[in-house]
Amino acid sequence: MDLQYALELSGTFVFAISGALAIREKEHDLFGAGFTGFITAIGGGTLRDILLDSHPLVWIGDIHFLYAILIGILTAFIFPNILSRLRKTFFLFDTLGIGFFTVLGVEKALSLGVRPEIAAIMGMFSAVMGGVIRDTLTNEIPILFRKEVYASACLVGAILYLILHYFAVDRNYNMLISMSLIISIRMIAMKYKLSLPRLG
Amino acid sequence: MDLQYALELSGTFVFAISGALAIREKEHDLFGAGFTGFITAIGGGTLRDILLDSHPLVWIGDIHFLYAILIGILTAFIFPNILSRLRKTFFLFDTLGIGFFTVLGVEKALSLGVRPEIAAIMGMFSAVMGGVIRDTLTNEIPILFRKEVYASACLVGAILYLILHYFAVDRNYNMLISMSLIISIRMIAMKYKLSLPRLG
Amino acid sequence: MDLQYALELSGTFVFAISGALAIREKEHDLFGAGFTGFITAIGGGTLRDILLDSHPLVWIGDIHFLYAILIGILTAFIFPNILSRLRKTFFLFDTLGIGFFTVLGVEKALSLGVRPEIAAIMGMFSAVMGGVIRDTLTNEIPILFRKEVYASACLVGAILYLILHYFAVDRNYNMLISMSLIISIRMIAMKYKLSLPRLG
Repeated sequence: MDLQYALELSGTFVFAISGALAIREKEHDLFGAGFTGFITAIGGGTLRDILLDSHPLVWIGDIHFLYAILIGILTAFIFPNILSRLRKTFFLFDTLGIGFFTVLGVEKALSLGVRPEIAAIMGMFSAVMGGVIRDTLTNEIPILFRKEVYASACLVGAILYLILHYFAVDRNYNMLISMSLIISIRMIAMKYKLSLPRLG
Repeated sequence: MDLQYALELSGTFVFAISGALAIREKEHDLFGAGFTGFITAIGGGTLRDILLDSHPLVWIGDIHFLYAILIGILTAFIFPNILSRLRKTFFLFDTLGIGFFTVLGVEKALSLGVRPEIAAIMGMFSAVMGGVIRDTLTNEIPILFRKEVYASACLVGAILYLILHYFAVDRNYNMLISMSLIISIRMIAMKYKLSLPRLG
Repeated sequence: MDLQYALELSGTFVFAISGALAIREKEHDLFGAGFTGFITAIGGGTLRDILLDSHPLVWIGDIHFLYAILIGILTAFIFPNILSRLRKTFFLFDTLGIGFFTVLGVEKALSLGVRPEIAAIMGMFSAVMGGVIRDTLTNEIPILFRKEVYASACLVGAILYLILHYFAVDRNYNMLISMSLIISIRMIAMKYKLSLPRLG
């Protein structure tokens, strides 16, 4: 449990950094960058909890999440150049983050008593909707609609988690396997520039 | 009641198809198209229920809505060309859909005890906000702001429903009359390219 | 209390006018302008109350807010040219409005039992998110991300309010001082074209 909590805070921290750096090339000021980091970090979980009517929201009920976000934003402000050179490291962290938050989102939804089909959607939302809201606010095409395999990897991982859960696989193994699937799909798709087909 | 439920599921199915096809010309992959279909189908009712604090959300509490959406998305994937050639048929279905969901939205809001003025807004939101959210996410000018008479037709129909409801007109007649008004306004405005005046 | 209520309704009225006029140069019809006025007026408080799970929403529970909005929209429709010539007056009203709504938002959040750090964010959200949602829907770069000092002034004012509140400064004085700070920052930044530095 302590490990999980540490991972949640770390994931939030990483999302805040990547959100704050996401608008760097634009004409945004420091406040805009900080706001974007904040939205990226809380957006997915907030949408999930509002849809499921689960209150208080995680970051409202536990102030440590806000601190993790603030430290992330400050880190982005102080070391923007170093962090930008670490692109590959960041891609790795972000990929770990979406894998982790997908599985946590599925578990939270299940614990609130919804059906597994809904839990799969909530897992994906937890992981990707922060970035979608950020991109919408900053007038970007949301990452979801770009060619990369991103949200679809989360959905597949969420479904695997639910299948293994149904067959009573131990939770820790299940988390590890499902996260690994998400991470593998995303990294392989990135490496070989794979993308899903288009419609029609 | 059974007829109404069948209509709700059918409306959801049609909205999912039109949402999935809406981004066809764009550089979106199948997942993006499916996501767009999903958002279009659930967006309006979800916003209404969150504003009114009505939980569980319709599609979370009743899994059949999710299935109606998935079948709609699959239909759009399998028959995109046939469906695109059926544009006029689709316009008709979409118009029936917004008429129907407006009236249902008004009824749901009234049943939750809000004032009629609020119920009229909720009826319109139920019908049009799915499309608005979809257009916002895909960086389109939302349909609401385009020249067509669309949301305004829903608002007028919602107000008519509330007036007839006040005068205790039988519910079935009222639904029929108010939906017909919405559908007529939209079809006449389309045929004669009518639009509301601009500001100033 | 009566004065506060009158100020809330007046602020809502002003926000509705400025929202309706905001899209004037665009190809929007009257309905779009009215819708934009509505969203601008309710957006911030609605987001705050949904995040804090405070129901019914202010404008759903008290119909006078809807009337204040409708009168604001009608005013914008009838006198668009006069109002546009009053730009400076409007800037003043808008600045008073964000100052006032920031402080009210902080107070409401505190009264719902959240921590001061969260209350500061909620105060800022109350004041600026209506405009952010409006800009997002109409495909503008949200005001938050433009160069002006806007949301950051609200955040600073919210933090000052919380500090004075902590030191048990009388509420009326506190409101006056914190609002004055927000208004001063914004007006000085506007006059001298100050802006926050960019990232990196």
